[in-house]
Amino acid sequence: MSAEAERIGGERLAPPITKGHFSVARVLDGWYVACRSSELGEKPRAVTVLGTPLALFRGAGGRPAALLDRCPHRNFPLSRGRVLATGALQCGYHGWQFDGQGACGRVPGLIGEMADAVARRVPAFAAREAQGFVWVWGRADAEPADEPFHIPCIDDSRYVAVQRTFDFECTLHAALENALDVPHTAFLHRGRFRGGDPSEIEAVRRRLPGGGLEVEYLGERRRPGEAKPRLDRPPVEHWDRFFLPSVAQVEYKDGKRSHLVATILHTPVSDLLTRAYFVQCIRLPLPKWLVRSYVARKVDQVLRQDRDALRTQTEGIRRFGGERYASTELDLMGPEILRMLKQSERGLAVDEAAPERRVKFLA
Amino acid sequence: MSAEAERIGGERLAPPITKGHFSVARVLDGWYVACRSSELGEKPRAVTVLGTPLALFRGAGGRPAALLDRCPHRNFPLSRGRVLATGALQCGYHGWQFDGQGACGRVPGLIGEMADAVARRVPAFAAREAQGFVWVWGRADAEPADEPFHIPCIDDSRYVAVQRTFDFECTLHAALENALDVPHTAFLHRGRFRGGDPSEIEAVRRRLPGGGLEVEYLGERRRPGEAKPRLDRPPVEHWDRFFLPSVAQVEYKDGKRSHLVATILHTPVSDLLTRAYFVQCIRLPLPKWLVRSYVARKVDQVLRQDRDALRTQTEGIRRFGGERYASTELDLMGPEILRMLKQSERGLAVDEAAPERRVKFLA
Amino acid sequence: MSAEAERIGGERLAPPITKGHFSVARVLDGWYVACRSSELGEKPRAVTVLGTPLALFRGAGGRPAALLDRCPHRNFPLSRGRVLATGALQCGYHGWQFDGQGACGRVPGLIGEMADAVARRVPAFAAREAQGFVWVWGRADAEPADEPFHIPCIDDSRYVAVQRTFDFECTLHAALENALDVPHTAFLHRGRFRGGDPSEIEAVRRRLPGGGLEVEYLGERRRPGEAKPRLDRPPVEHWDRFFLPSVAQVEYKDGKRSHLVATILHTPVSDLLTRAYFVQCIRLPLPKWLVRSYVARKVDQVLRQDRDALRTQTEGIRRFGGERYASTELDLMGPEILRMLKQSERGLAVDEAAPERRVKFLA
Repeated sequence: MSAEAERIGGERLAPPITKGHFSVARVLDGWYVACRSSELGEKPRAVTVLGTPLALFRGAGGRPAALLDRCPHRNFPLSRGRVLATGALQCGYHGWQFDGQGACGRVPGLIGEMADAVARRVPAFAAREAQGFVWVWGRADAEPADEPFHIPCIDDSRYVAVQRTFDFECTLHAALENALDVPHTAFLHRGRFRGGDPSEIEAVRRRLPGGGLEVEYLGERRRPGEAKPRLDRPPVEHWDRFFLPSVAQVEYKDGKRSHLVATILHTPVSDLLTRAYFVQCIRLPLPKWLVRSYVARKVDQVLRQDRDALRTQTEGIRRFGGERYASTELDLMGPEILRMLKQSERGLAVDEAAPERRVKFLA
Repeated sequence: MSAEAERIGGERLAPPITKGHFSVARVLDGWYVACRSSELGEKPRAVTVLGTPLALFRGAGGRPAALLDRCPHRNFPLSRGRVLATGALQCGYHGWQFDGQGACGRVPGLIGEMADAVARRVPAFAAREAQGFVWVWGRADAEPADEPFHIPCIDDSRYVAVQRTFDFECTLHAALENALDVPHTAFLHRGRFRGGDPSEIEAVRRRLPGGGLEVEYLGERRRPGEAKPRLDRPPVEHWDRFFLPSVAQVEYKDGKRSHLVATILHTPVSDLLTRAYFVQCIRLPLPKWLVRSYVARKVDQVLRQDRDALRTQTEGIRRFGGERYASTELDLMGPEILRMLKQSERGLAVDEAAPERRVKFLA
Repeated sequence: MSAEAERIGGERLAPPITKGHFSVARVLDGWYVACRSSELGEKPRAVTVLGTPLALFRGAGGRPAALLDRCPHRNFPLSRGRVLATGALQCGYHGWQFDGQGACGRVPGLIGEMADAVARRVPAFAAREAQGFVWVWGRADAEPADEPFHIPCIDDSRYVAVQRTFDFECTLHAALENALDVPHTAFLHRGRFRGGDPSEIEAVRRRLPGGGLEVEYLGERRRPGEAKPRLDRPPVEHWDRFFLPSVAQVEYKDGKRSHLVATILHTPVSDLLTRAYFVQCIRLPLPKWLVRSYVARKVDQVLRQDRDALRTQTEGIRRFGGERYASTELDLMGPEILRMLKQSERGLAVDEAAPERRVKFLA
């Protein structure tokens, strides 16, 4: 299977517009958030995942279904049609009807048997609904290998959950690297978090079972402003994690009572547009309303800065027709994530036995 | 001759932007409406036909003339110039002058003979004016094989003529198919015309002499709302017709006193933009003002729905980089029209002896 | 070296979008105005020269410096960063720092030696500041062969200097030809200058040392409106000149007291966008305020007409995917300038011994 183009329903889809050396990998065998549960009502919804237009709708029993967004008859977008009481999706041009598996059940006007029903099939994508999200599997007409990513703490009432959706004009890889990159925070988000005189800390990078990557930071100081620093307490614990194909996670723990897990579910809409569903779960020895208001404001500020930086980065890369990155040992996550994405795109098992790596730096 | 690119004036023009499997055929040997007579006054007018920019103007004696819209000197658009009292078209940059056949008559400043006048020729397109339209022949520097299409009933005072111009963002083929497709009307235009319980009707498709195709509908019921249905009268007669290269025609006859002929003159501006000059001629046993007001409103509603559907269809196709159509026996006109366009584009005679075809369906 | 693409810093840059037969030549070995001195303050400035994005800034001692506008780390545009007190340019994403020669002096967070500093170099372009302009050399990491063009009369207090900046949507070649083309002035600028009954004049074209081309006009009459024509005085002297790679110059002399030199410094921003820095120096036996107000108004009128004509010409050419020019002997400058640009682009010495050419025409 090639990264350049993919066959869906027996046909070679034109690849999205990316040319040159962009860090793009299209991992088809994986779950991606198509939308929030609340965004999918009685009408079909057009979404794009991995450059492929999908018609999302609630079929029989209200269960989400996803079809390639193209009626096989005259290629009218199915998402512009309507959902019938039977749970069928009906095209808005000539009224052809399809079920959640893409089978054409009816062609208005046609008398007799649906002899060549196979030619009228629409490629279908497996869909799931869980924890407030509708997920789709990236490969058409395929059986998913597992279930969607489980978001920790979101269902735990001791936690405040702050949720946001942000569109980043960049590759999935650039968004993932940005979310998990420590060095830029001290600079781009100066004054927001991190700051003051830098001190030496150590990072340990290791693989996680099932296609994950983790960096643990040792010796990190308490982040200013969140709670009063108390010198008699152990240093803050901090992990950054990546889970194939597109989840980033940042976890901070400060003793037994303070805990933060930010899980960012990325959907590669197209090669250069990545939607990020941001779920920040926080538990602090403070009133929930206070935590919520403080965290929400900080999250918005930081995500807006990141969004601007990523758009600017992409504009810069576009002008040159592609990337040319020079990494240092501080880039612990980015290059490794790209390697995992590329392996996964080619259908290779990701090596879980890669050795640990330790790096010291100033932060 | 290739469908991909065409030589005009000895030069290979860059083909329009279409890629992939769009149903595009560029029939050069045919007449196309360039504009309405009333739209061409003293100033030159820029029009595009088959992707080729033309400068249209009224030359000697007010007769329309059409030149390639490019001054041979520095490629300034001739349509940005002006028409002199001599009937010559003068370029707006350096003042070169051309007659209706494209010959350069004068270069300001130049002393002596016009020695290399041939290099200064502009390709010219035959032009005609008739029944309120200015027509151009699609091939440069060629002698037309016939005269422009004659619009029936438009000059008959017993008829009300309702005229409209609509730009459809789609291929010529998609516009023709839409104009002559019966099944979509019951669905897309539900409640506008057709509707209620469907009954079985029969369609007969046959070739017409001189590059035409006709479908006759047998057993069709009277259309509601146009006149009181009277059960003692014979069923409505109904024909849909296509005439090469780009005319669609719909005719309804109800006894001797009611008659409707809608003639749609299509101009392929570019591969994915088609201008439709809609001429609906109606004769009914009702006051003309009533007919006109009723028909005009209905025509606008239907054409607006078709315009939206065709734009949506084209957007859908663009996203996938091309078409992939699955037709049924209900698609009597579309696939056959494409075959005729493709034959005609390659300069082949269109087969007039193709056998009749009969299909039953519900409408 | 190819005209299609150029390697900068060891990498093949994607060529700008030009296709087909545009009169485009990318002369890298030459000076181009990057901006006016007054436009470059404490912040870096993004400019594009020959399709290459540059980050312009005032480094050590306030001297202008120009780097390729791409941080080698994650390709963030350096022009979006800031200039430090040390004179270093700091990237806005991760804070990497560069001096005016493109060397990376610091990576925040990194401990120890800058071992692979070479991989972190940014291509640098020589820069100069003179006569109110900041110039850059067109080739990266190259030693300039000479100094920027010296603008005559601008520093002479007897002259009034009228300055303008205009963006022309056309090739460098089209802008140069337009600036130095006499025949269009009588037509496009009719009534602005030149006009009335044409008389025969003679033009002599000759090469100038160091990559220049000059046309001298003999027998030209005094231009109306500038000063009272006095028949007892010798005819106006008039020269048009081109200097490689991008300077146009028009000089009029009327006896000893009236003198006009218009120097137009062109910067090819991209293939189809050319910025023109217009410096008109005039000495007349009239009050300076009167000269300034009269000339400024006339210059604006003429430049606006030229800008519109050049944009229209480019639109016309784009539609046809390229140029197809038919020149006459009146086109003394344009074809010869293109020849010189093409030779220069390929690194060839421009032939200075080309023979004189004499042409008579009406103007």
